[in-house]
Amino acid sequence: MVLGLSQESGISGPNRIAFARESYFCKKHYLQMPMFPARPLILASKSPRRRQLLTEAGFSFTVHSLDVDESFPPDMPATEVAGYLARRKALAGKHLIKDREIIISADSVVILNGQIFNKPETYDEAYSMISQLAGNQHTVVTGVCLLGSEQERSFSEHTEVFFEDLSPEEIKYYIEQYQPYDKAGAYGVQEWIGHCKIRRIEGTYTNVMGLPVHRLYAELQYFK
Amino acid sequence: MVLGLSQESGISGPNRIAFARESYFCKKHYLQMPMFPARPLILASKSPRRRQLLTEAGFSFTVHSLDVDESFPPDMPATEVAGYLARRKALAGKHLIKDREIIISADSVVILNGQIFNKPETYDEAYSMISQLAGNQHTVVTGVCLLGSEQERSFSEHTEVFFEDLSPEEIKYYIEQYQPYDKAGAYGVQEWIGHCKIRRIEGTYTNVMGLPVHRLYAELQYFK
Repeated sequence: MVLGLSQESGISGPNRIAFARESYFCKKHYLQMPMFPARPLILASKSPRRRQLLTEAGFSFTVHSLDVDESFPPDMPATEVAGYLARRKALAGKHLIKDREIIISADSVVILNGQIFNKPETYDEAYSMISQLAGNQHTVVTGVCLLGSEQERSFSEHTEVFFEDLSPEEIKYYIEQYQPYDKAGAYGVQEWIGHCKIRRIEGTYTNVMGLPVHRLYAELQYFK
Repeated sequence: MVLGLSQESGISGPNRIAFARESYFCKKHYLQMPMFPARPLILASKSPRRRQLLTEAGFSFTVHSLDVDESFPPDMPATEVAGYLARRKALAGKHLIKDREIIISADSVVILNGQIFNKPETYDEAYSMISQLAGNQHTVVTGVCLLGSEQERSFSEHTEVFFEDLSPEEIKYYIEQYQPYDKAGAYGVQEWIGHCKIRRIEGTYTNVMGLPVHRLYAELQYFK
């Protein structure tokens, strides 16, 4: 579905970022997608999973990755953190917006019993997170911010995820095989653990992967 | 994740099939996957989506596609059809089983108000199906049969799918762009329509794609 891919790297300057830019063109889709604003989209995310979802859904877009401080106020309710961070990421790129461009930013958090599970830094931390998720229900919240020069739209989407039990051998296998250190909650829904050990979700799969595409599609209609 | 891929084509004879055979090796996974029987798996399906799911989950397997009559008794309850057809597909390949091989077969149906939606044959049929699914809840049932030389295990998994409304332009766009004539119910969950127009599922995403991988993984434990 990706008909063209162009790359620029190392662009720097006051209005540019010092990371690679990648453009994903789905010209055929772009021209025909109904009820869709004919405006350039910028995905402000390093996540290959968000890129994959937008591509599968037939969007054309450019990726600009920005480094943003991901701390949040300690007293903030867990369900509000993803929206807060998504908005911060979009605002960090606000000065990059040209003409009719729209920035798309997102942040996902895994919440179990009111506690946020971030990206694990060590094997033991990953092991601890997965062993707590095993046999339990948790919530994935993805916050999204759409930012154009004339308006901002922010929203959060919740999905309930139900894990099967996992044996110590299974947790060890998953961490060693998949190295989930770049993933909130220490798991990727599209990997072995997601396919073999999630028994039910209530909500959308794309939200668990990191971008609630159906909400994104609906909200983009408000940009004319 | 696919470390090796071998292909043989045009094999024919009384105990062989006249289609291409493709083997998917995930050696690293295969050796390490916990609680998994060290038995060769044969996926009896032409579906690229089932192949993708097994590969993402880290299984090694061979694909044997068989042509099987997909008719069923007219008075059979809609929810039993997928299991019936999955079992028929596995039994059609029973004579191919060698030693410790296990055949995996599956069939998925889309059910709205007790009525089964098969693969559409024409544009108008696809349009009619999608316009009925739009704004409604339907059920996807995938039946699976695991067949070894010593035992058979069959099961069905249900997932509820909730579609957003679709405009006539959106339905036309989807059919023309994605040509969903090979898909039960005229839609693919991993395409534009699934990402942008499904607002909720209750169950597993892999089941809607055509193979309930977590059930498959659990049932395979019964083969020693």
